[in-house]
Amino acid sequence: MLGVGVIGYGYWGPNLVRNFFADTGSKVLAVCDRSPERLAEVGRLYPGVATTTDPAELFRNPQIDAVAIATPVATHFQLAMDALRAGKHVLVEKPIASTSSEAAQMIDEAARRDLVLLVDHTFVFTGAVNKIREVMRDESFGRLQYYDSTRVNLGLFQHDVNVMWDLAVHDLSIMAYVMESHPVGVSATGLSHVPNQPANLAFLTCFFADNIIAHINVNWLSPVKIRRTLVGGSKRMIVYDDLETSEKVKIYDKGITVTETPDDIRKLLISYRTGDLWSPKVNETEALRLEATHFRKCIEKKEKPITPGEAGLAIVKLLEAADESMKRRGEAITI
Amino acid sequence: MLGVGVIGYGYWGPNLVRNFFADTGSKVLAVCDRSPERLAEVGRLYPGVATTTDPAELFRNPQIDAVAIATPVATHFQLAMDALRAGKHVLVEKPIASTSSEAAQMIDEAARRDLVLLVDHTFVFTGAVNKIREVMRDESFGRLQYYDSTRVNLGLFQHDVNVMWDLAVHDLSIMAYVMESHPVGVSATGLSHVPNQPANLAFLTCFFADNIIAHINVNWLSPVKIRRTLVGGSKRMIVYDDLETSEKVKIYDKGITVTETPDDIRKLLISYRTGDLWSPKVNETEALRLEATHFRKCIEKKEKPITPGEAGLAIVKLLEAADESMKRRGEAITI
Amino acid sequence: MLGVGVIGYGYWGPNLVRNFFADTGSKVLAVCDRSPERLAEVGRLYPGVATTTDPAELFRNPQIDAVAIATPVATHFQLAMDALRAGKHVLVEKPIASTSSEAAQMIDEAARRDLVLLVDHTFVFTGAVNKIREVMRDESFGRLQYYDSTRVNLGLFQHDVNVMWDLAVHDLSIMAYVMESHPVGVSATGLSHVPNQPANLAFLTCFFADNIIAHINVNWLSPVKIRRTLVGGSKRMIVYDDLETSEKVKIYDKGITVTETPDDIRKLLISYRTGDLWSPKVNETEALRLEATHFRKCIEKKEKPITPGEAGLAIVKLLEAADESMKRRGEAITI
Amino acid sequence: MLGVGVIGYGYWGPNLVRNFFADTGSKVLAVCDRSPERLAEVGRLYPGVATTTDPAELFRNPQIDAVAIATPVATHFQLAMDALRAGKHVLVEKPIASTSSEAAQMIDEAARRDLVLLVDHTFVFTGAVNKIREVMRDESFGRLQYYDSTRVNLGLFQHDVNVMWDLAVHDLSIMAYVMESHPVGVSATGLSHVPNQPANLAFLTCFFADNIIAHINVNWLSPVKIRRTLVGGSKRMIVYDDLETSEKVKIYDKGITVTETPDDIRKLLISYRTGDLWSPKVNETEALRLEATHFRKCIEKKEKPITPGEAGLAIVKLLEAADESMKRRGEAITI
Repeated sequence: MLGVGVIGYGYWGPNLVRNFFADTGSKVLAVCDRSPERLAEVGRLYPGVATTTDPAELFRNPQIDAVAIATPVATHFQLAMDALRAGKHVLVEKPIASTSSEAAQMIDEAARRDLVLLVDHTFVFTGAVNKIREVMRDESFGRLQYYDSTRVNLGLFQHDVNVMWDLAVHDLSIMAYVMESHPVGVSATGLSHVPNQPANLAFLTCFFADNIIAHINVNWLSPVKIRRTLVGGSKRMIVYDDLETSEKVKIYDKGITVTETPDDIRKLLISYRTGDLWSPKVNETEALRLEATHFRKCIEKKEKPITPGEAGLAIVKLLEAADESMKRRGEAITI
Repeated sequence: MLGVGVIGYGYWGPNLVRNFFADTGSKVLAVCDRSPERLAEVGRLYPGVATTTDPAELFRNPQIDAVAIATPVATHFQLAMDALRAGKHVLVEKPIASTSSEAAQMIDEAARRDLVLLVDHTFVFTGAVNKIREVMRDESFGRLQYYDSTRVNLGLFQHDVNVMWDLAVHDLSIMAYVMESHPVGVSATGLSHVPNQPANLAFLTCFFADNIIAHINVNWLSPVKIRRTLVGGSKRMIVYDDLETSEKVKIYDKGITVTETPDDIRKLLISYRTGDLWSPKVNETEALRLEATHFRKCIEKKEKPITPGEAGLAIVKLLEAADESMKRRGEAITI
Repeated sequence: MLGVGVIGYGYWGPNLVRNFFADTGSKVLAVCDRSPERLAEVGRLYPGVATTTDPAELFRNPQIDAVAIATPVATHFQLAMDALRAGKHVLVEKPIASTSSEAAQMIDEAARRDLVLLVDHTFVFTGAVNKIREVMRDESFGRLQYYDSTRVNLGLFQHDVNVMWDLAVHDLSIMAYVMESHPVGVSATGLSHVPNQPANLAFLTCFFADNIIAHINVNWLSPVKIRRTLVGGSKRMIVYDDLETSEKVKIYDKGITVTETPDDIRKLLISYRTGDLWSPKVNETEALRLEATHFRKCIEKKEKPITPGEAGLAIVKLLEAADESMKRRGEAITI
Repeated sequence: MLGVGVIGYGYWGPNLVRNFFADTGSKVLAVCDRSPERLAEVGRLYPGVATTTDPAELFRNPQIDAVAIATPVATHFQLAMDALRAGKHVLVEKPIASTSSEAAQMIDEAARRDLVLLVDHTFVFTGAVNKIREVMRDESFGRLQYYDSTRVNLGLFQHDVNVMWDLAVHDLSIMAYVMESHPVGVSATGLSHVPNQPANLAFLTCFFADNIIAHINVNWLSPVKIRRTLVGGSKRMIVYDDLETSEKVKIYDKGITVTETPDDIRKLLISYRTGDLWSPKVNETEALRLEATHFRKCIEKKEKPITPGEAGLAIVKLLEAADESMKRRGEAITI
């Protein structure tokens, strides 16, 4: 039985607690948060769980084998380092840290102590993303051509980081998991509409070798929530709409038509899609539940997780480059 | 009664003929196309209309007062100049010309001869875009913050121009009509996936003064057709989905929340939208029908059209800057 | 070349004219309507077509081989009988006639004179309905269990007949085409909300042998247009949404679960669909265009059409039974 | 603090436990279920709660003031009667009982002992239904004309009752809450497709005085889940789609057009909706949470709940009439 402590009981922490509770091989022993009100809520829902405002109590507790960190990004580094130094395995919220240098130190520390360091790239554990990966790896997909994602939210300025560090990180983690190549450059533009707040909308282009391109549109100030990703292959294309309840993943047969014949053009222009459409049923198990179990099994079997610290580091490096490009109004930065 | 000649009977030409036919003050007298098959089709549907493969016949015809040009972009300049020199008013397909220098000459020629030169920015004549303009100009909208449009099509390589000159021109023309400021710079990225063909997908960011930003995502290789635009104001936001049959324009009340309170964050994150939604009924008259009538009335009243040559020129200048930026992988080009 | 005359140039007549024009083997020679304004419109769009307010002119014209009738239902019988007696083939709008006795006489007259009598059940000629028929006839569909259609319209009281005779006739004609058994009884309920007008909303249940049931919900007073049909088979199910632009026909794999296990129940209740989904691309050719050509070919080859007078008669008999049932507040009437 | 015991921890019971836990004035003291596995789950999630397979233990427990019953319908009567006789307030799952006679006895028993008897008509506590009620009671809605609901599910045979007792009960409870008149008759048709199982699809028409009609379409064998209700008023109409995440309730302005003018007809037929649309934001609080609190407050203040036993009885009477009508193939039964 894995003893788990959770630090941070704000928006995401309750999901961690609930899902470690649901994992039959884990036991949540303690929750830490700065707010007594939040801790009272823990006490009411989980009478047997210890609560504290001091993370050090968790690190000192010999029954706690692993710590899950769901606090503001700026605090990830110190909390994770303290946990690792106390010999605890660490699951840390995305993005892994505020800088690539911090992330690198966390990875080193975990490696030196032979501890599991997992970064919570939740989407990697969804049935939809795994189905997409499967489709993309099949020969019938052809060569990957582009990845284009829109991920926009409702008027919420939530973080100590800009919108790319909050939302684009999801796409970057999905891309790292489903694509077989890595960005070699990034161009980003964006803006803040609220004085003294970080950029609330941003547009990233990632350049790859092999004539592949990716684009990510993130925005905290949208009137509607959108989570739509198009993935283009030379033989098939995918539409992934994470808000769709019944058809999250759609796969289209298609071909390119290079033509100037008016009749062909007319037919294509008045058409709404090409080829047949297939929408496989995807695993609907909550991603975080699978992730909690994966984390425990990695600890038990001393294996590297699917989303190790290195995955977190790669994304932070990209975000740093994107920040730099945004300052330079879109000038491409080589990774 | 305005005598009209149409040059080009490919994809768009038939719509021009049909709509000038429907305008009670106009009469289509002749259609010109290089293809005898296309001209035979004209003869079958419109028995009374003269057909020719030589545009000069139209220019020579004293009964023809105005010429509508729906040919490949590269031919716009020569055809329009010949028409203007023959004293004909000109309606020309978008984009107005292949270069800003050509566009400028067309404008000069029309001005010198006191002829109407209208560029066919069709969306400017839709009920939806006019409703959006009305909403944006109302005080209740607040200050404009962003314009973000996705306009993607089904696997068709259609033109002698790249995807920005084919699709982004629609958004640029809408922006010019609904916004009150003009881009001061542009950053663009994009790619071609078919050897020896122009870029088939592109992402543009337009920078404005006043903390406004615009973004346009265009793609010829999408599995699905998307025509969705978000327009953010400080008090209201608009979603414009041109493929929606019954709710093309939706207007949302909203406010920004700058918060770190977990409860507020949770509520906003699990919510799907903010505030009430209002979807006005918009005028569903075919845009090209209104445009044909507008063109005739401008000729009759000697007035400047809503979409004059100058509107076409401004967009061509932007597209030239975007081409340059795309070559430089996103480096911003000042307009 | 088939000489065609069209009677009635109201809502549907223009579609008939346009589509017979588009059929390369037919030629529209004359159009008849009571309204001079409507005839003026014909003259403007089709300069070569004769116009008249007297249908007898069409019947006398020896160049007219066939007559298409798109007038109010009450006039179908007389016009069709006159046409048949004049030796003309007849295409008549649905429903074929006001009573089954009239329909039977029309069929007899056409048979006696060896003329084609086609009732315009347009949906039978759509790509969607033909795809559905194909799926239902495949063994993988299993046994048919139910057909359930909702066909509701926007606040329009249009006809001299009630809503079943206007809208349910579409479903009854589709059912006759895709199902292999015929209703043995019908129960109908409904109501009129406008004084002195026929019922504007109605609910029909058709009973079949073989444990099959069909249900049709028609309404002229809906706030939104709905055209959604569910077809249940023992192994597969179909959703047909005629307003969907890109996915009109969806086919679902499924199975029935008879269970009281809470876990199974929970899983099914929180799920949004069962099994994989497949949406084939369907032929998008305008149905009336195919129907016009089919009508001409039946005349040329002396063949019975897919939608002969008999198909129209069967539906009128059903509608008469439904009217009777509605009067008796749902009491089933045996066919 | 209200002491609560919950009987039945199958599909719905866990929701009752969770929501009584969340009510700050209630405390779940014990849970009863026949299955030791289900009780083990209770123990794991709620360490402090007593578990038992014997409902009598709850009735004997003096600290338990109220009992919530979420067991199969056939057991409601006996469990509720035993609870009431033991002096416990009762919240009972819908439908309240298997017969109207049982329901009447339960109401009498509760009245005699001055205990609260609440039937769990959950939808009555949703923000959407309360918004609909508010809209319908406003003068701007005009006179109610019809209520038309489709509520279909995915291939699950779940109950000891037929599909009307499982699904139509939701609509009947909503209708009772939002309408101001009561059905005077009912016509129902339906069928079972699985041997020895109750009807799995059914179509009900409810007749009212005042020219109002209601229709309910319920089905356990649909490929997709649908929860769509149209409510027609003489001045406004409502579309309520319970599966819509962001626009559950839409209100349309409209008017009826009685016309035979082809132009009006054409305009209405090619239109997708009439008038402006308004979609108010509705309260998204979980209905069962509000219901749990309402139940407790009724007990504290000795008030009649919004959904008293009488509301349950009225619906059971309707369902009995519908069963009878279904046997007679749609013959209307007077209430």
